[in-house]
Amino acid sequence: MTTHDQATPGTARTPIWKAIADRLEAEIAQGLYPPGAQLPTEAVLSARFGVNRHTVRRALGDLGTRGIVRSRRGAGVFVASVPTDYPLGRRVRFHRSLAEGGHLPERRVLRVETRPATPREAEVLQLGPDDPVVVYEGLSLSDGQVIALFETAFPSARLPGIAEALARHTSVTEALRAAGVDDYVRAETRITAERANAMQALHLGLDEGDPILRTVSRNDDLAGVPVEHGNAWFAGDRIALTLAGSGP
Amino acid sequence: MTTHDQATPGTARTPIWKAIADRLEAEIAQGLYPPGAQLPTEAVLSARFGVNRHTVRRALGDLGTRGIVRSRRGAGVFVASVPTDYPLGRRVRFHRSLAEGGHLPERRVLRVETRPATPREAEVLQLGPDDPVVVYEGLSLSDGQVIALFETAFPSARLPGIAEALARHTSVTEALRAAGVDDYVRAETRITAERANAMQALHLGLDEGDPILRTVSRNDDLAGVPVEHGNAWFAGDRIALTLAGSGP
Repeated sequence: MTTHDQATPGTARTPIWKAIADRLEAEIAQGLYPPGAQLPTEAVLSARFGVNRHTVRRALGDLGTRGIVRSRRGAGVFVASVPTDYPLGRRVRFHRSLAEGGHLPERRVLRVETRPATPREAEVLQLGPDDPVVVYEGLSLSDGQVIALFETAFPSARLPGIAEALARHTSVTEALRAAGVDDYVRAETRITAERANAMQALHLGLDEGDPILRTVSRNDDLAGVPVEHGNAWFAGDRIALTLAGSGP
Repeated sequence: MTTHDQATPGTARTPIWKAIADRLEAEIAQGLYPPGAQLPTEAVLSARFGVNRHTVRRALGDLGTRGIVRSRRGAGVFVASVPTDYPLGRRVRFHRSLAEGGHLPERRVLRVETRPATPREAEVLQLGPDDPVVVYEGLSLSDGQVIALFETAFPSARLPGIAEALARHTSVTEALRAAGVDDYVRAETRITAERANAMQALHLGLDEGDPILRTVSRNDDLAGVPVEHGNAWFAGDRIALTLAGSGP
């Protein structure tokens, strides 16, 4: 302990680690370290505040317990992300939902391929066994940060030209429109929590085993015919799925 | 490897571990080991099938990879639970939602106490600083199994007698009715994924660090006045939060 750990007269009730935690919290609140930013190392903070590392660690531990920062193994200490709200409205509109929240939406295609439906996909999409589906795998980004990995299946016989449309448009809404579906709605969504596997962790910038939100959904056209069976995996600390009330 | 690991003529393409996995899978599908049940130990399965433990472990590993069983550290191997659907409808009715799904709902009270609102609770419930709230902490069960831990705050000045009503009724709907609120709706719900801390793991029968679904919600009476600010933590592998479409 350095002499800084001893309180000076008149401030006897605030230990120095607490003062450091308060100072860092204020700097985070002021935006000096924005959400997702890495804090300086323990060594740098020790030098800055003139205390030993034990004291810095206690301050960081306090911020961690209060959810203000989060450490990642071998990477350092980061300002906790404010989860981006992702509204689960009746209409499924990734681009519009994020843009309305002031975020810049983006999609990256990992794969578009046609293959026979799995038994589960055939059941959900009301297809015959081995009827073809177009599988679209990709990443959803908000403000340049990956927020979700998705894999979704479209009944290709029902949606002529969907594979080409998905390769051409980043928006599923536009691709479906090009394939003849003017409007579609969320028919069913199930939300569970899982641990990220190695591949999901890589894509989402998480550690393996970190919590992820999984959604499984079916979207229908306005005649009630299934047009999409989607799986998405969201970074648990970066996204809050939200339901708005529809008013009394 | 015992001689059982060598294929007999005519079945050359099915290794014995795979045959054991198929057999156990069939027994699970028949309900011999229902969801959540513990499988016999490796020693017992080795004796039953006349193979060494390595072979049993490979069979269990295969079932684990396919999500049919799940191992818990130091406890054994369990049949994966089929997640109970928990519908997030516009009306928040724990008892009715589960009962309609064919489940037996139950609530256990851990704590009912009156204290000043936290800044966050005051903001959500539109209270003045330090206005009192009644905090209700407890466990939600479905078919005798804990599915959620909850902590919810009620604005006590707005709801005369709510503390006594919560102690008397297991249903929040009935307690609110006793406090003068005939009907209330879900105004806002946010869903995130977190890791279970030690206390949550204990209540939910999980390992520390297991994924949990967290919901934070505000419920309003029909005039739009907030009557409840709720936090709930659901066992990630046991509950699927579901949204139904409202039709075209």
